[in-house]
Amino acid sequence: MTSEIYFDNAASTKPYDEVIIRMTEVLKYNYGNSLSVHKKGLEANKIIKSAAQTLADILKCNTNEIIFTAGGTEANNLAIKGTYYANKGRGHHIITSLYEHASIMATINDLKKDEADISYIKIDNKGVANINTLSNLITEKSIFVSLMKVNNEVGTINNIELASKIVKEKNNNIVFHTDNVQGFCKLPVNLNKLKNIDLMSLSGHKFNGPKGVGALFVRKGTNILPMMNGNLYQNHLRAGTLNTAAIAGLEIAAMISNKNMEANLKKVSKLNKYLEEKITKEIDGIKILGDKNKVPYITDIAFINIKSEVLLNHLSAIDICVSSGSACSSRKQTYSHVLTAMDISTEYIDGVIRISLSHDNTFEEIDRLIKEIKLILPMLRMIRRK
Amino acid sequence: MTSEIYFDNAASTKPYDEVIIRMTEVLKYNYGNSLSVHKKGLEANKIIKSAAQTLADILKCNTNEIIFTAGGTEANNLAIKGTYYANKGRGHHIITSLYEHASIMATINDLKKDEADISYIKIDNKGVANINTLSNLITEKSIFVSLMKVNNEVGTINNIELASKIVKEKNNNIVFHTDNVQGFCKLPVNLNKLKNIDLMSLSGHKFNGPKGVGALFVRKGTNILPMMNGNLYQNHLRAGTLNTAAIAGLEIAAMISNKNMEANLKKVSKLNKYLEEKITKEIDGIKILGDKNKVPYITDIAFINIKSEVLLNHLSAIDICVSSGSACSSRKQTYSHVLTAMDISTEYIDGVIRISLSHDNTFEEIDRLIKEIKLILPMLRMIRRK
Repeated sequence: MTSEIYFDNAASTKPYDEVIIRMTEVLKYNYGNSLSVHKKGLEANKIIKSAAQTLADILKCNTNEIIFTAGGTEANNLAIKGTYYANKGRGHHIITSLYEHASIMATINDLKKDEADISYIKIDNKGVANINTLSNLITEKSIFVSLMKVNNEVGTINNIELASKIVKEKNNNIVFHTDNVQGFCKLPVNLNKLKNIDLMSLSGHKFNGPKGVGALFVRKGTNILPMMNGNLYQNHLRAGTLNTAAIAGLEIAAMISNKNMEANLKKVSKLNKYLEEKITKEIDGIKILGDKNKVPYITDIAFINIKSEVLLNHLSAIDICVSSGSACSSRKQTYSHVLTAMDISTEYIDGVIRISLSHDNTFEEIDRLIKEIKLILPMLRMIRRK
Repeated sequence: MTSEIYFDNAASTKPYDEVIIRMTEVLKYNYGNSLSVHKKGLEANKIIKSAAQTLADILKCNTNEIIFTAGGTEANNLAIKGTYYANKGRGHHIITSLYEHASIMATINDLKKDEADISYIKIDNKGVANINTLSNLITEKSIFVSLMKVNNEVGTINNIELASKIVKEKNNNIVFHTDNVQGFCKLPVNLNKLKNIDLMSLSGHKFNGPKGVGALFVRKGTNILPMMNGNLYQNHLRAGTLNTAAIAGLEIAAMISNKNMEANLKKVSKLNKYLEEKITKEIDGIKILGDKNKVPYITDIAFINIKSEVLLNHLSAIDICVSSGSACSSRKQTYSHVLTAMDISTEYIDGVIRISLSHDNTFEEIDRLIKEIKLILPMLRMIRRK
């Protein structure tokens, strides 16, 4: 029997043992509501404050600029709706890119019902946003720009520092948001230096923390309204009992991931290089998508003449987990909007699988993946041609 | 050394050991994204489906009528905004009561910016909503009624069955929502019989489950829009990665709490009777708030001539946790809107503490609470009179 191989870390990661131990501890002993003023409440509140401090230290910001949410999707929803409704007195124009995560695309799109006017930054065929066109998209009515740091399907990296600088130089009132769900704890961020970034989203389960928890960085002075109403806590930006255990788990995950960021990046880069070189050498009719400048954690591989779901299902049956497109759209039957934005040719677009690595993966696992694909691919292509 | 006494179960409960064990298991082994179509995804998806089935069995509804959220606050926000924006073509009138949870009050209030017109059901001085006035509040423009089942501060119970019947008989198009966060798994609910209830909120951490997870029951055919945008799952009503571990924990908590509902109710009723009788006998100048018909889990006690925070802090210092008003408003410096709605007289309104019991509490703990209050009260009253 061979063991399970998990190559879908961009969809969700395995929480660190230390995260699980910490969560168990908090669930067992620190069950008070952090909003209560008695001992059990204060004890829970201390856990929340500590987590905010840890994130603030990593991001180089202040603790009251950290708003805990129930995940990346809520952080993105809050960033977009919160900013739009707070600023729409000044205009209704939003700028985003054509390959943002669905929680950005759909949320911005939904604002059309409230007169939002949307411009899109185009994506080149390497999967990088054309930020040099950004300046021309900005108008007097622009109030909000959202551009992701790392794309979740191809792993390409956008120069957020430059993009936010272009935006602010043209119009300092525009709020600049970046979805950093795939980049946090993988690439360094220093918000003290990145002064032009007002909002940044992150999600616990993408860096070996728990699901159901994320955060939005909200720079002091940013004009934003809450989305989740009720008694507002967290700098008056969110209502709802804070999820102490998950927040404590996120803290531990961020500490470990941040401490090991460089070592992990080095290790995963080697794994990724090995994967890309070996699969290119050994398998015909494939194309590695994306730019040279991408995170090694994500590799999109397009196989000519196959349907990715068939390959995915075959691999799943022999305990190898990969993704076709992003998990977030994997139950849909349409083409990935990311691949469409990158203008991937029709013979390839059907057969794209995403291998997303973690520091836990091994060279042996990659060997097995390639071996299994090599074995099945001729048959899949034969079926497809019939 | 005496041990910690926790009387703030309406703010948050201690998760069952079985809940923590199950969550640990899921965090450790079932870390896939339930939206992924490979093995680890399907495995997570199975956990979600099982939890939905368990809730559906308890509530007597269908699994696709269960929408998991990140808690009661999100469930209430979704119910209100989702219904309002889906139905405002028919009118802008909303009816609610004067003592709903903040996540209802503030969310409805926030809709005023989108022309919502709000009518309030008054509360009698026993803490029960005057549902016989409901019929007169309904107009042709009414689209939504939200009335809580159990009030979180005084524990009083509203006749939701009757209220929803009155509403539907007058205008069958009105969507009826009940916030059942304090009632679920404490009082039986049969949604197959309660046909006039369209939406019902519940929250995991109020019945010994984890924080950060809740659910909204959405009856088939209800006209409602999502609030959390992105790729929509869960009957197209919510985007965002599902929190597998917390949902699995909620399932276990619901199973245990539901199985023991009657036994717990019996036990807590005895504890409550003992508490109310003994404290009334032994301490002068107090008043038990609320109606006879209330859940035994919650007792609001008003002490004449004291400030509740001072008593709360004193008790907290000797390891007894009680609440002043609800935890949700406990960091605010205003009077509880619940007590205001009940028209509690000024000499009492300053000195209200909430004792909220669980099946875990004991008679000895109640003895100690009363003993400690008796000891300190004369001093607190003396200070107050100065």
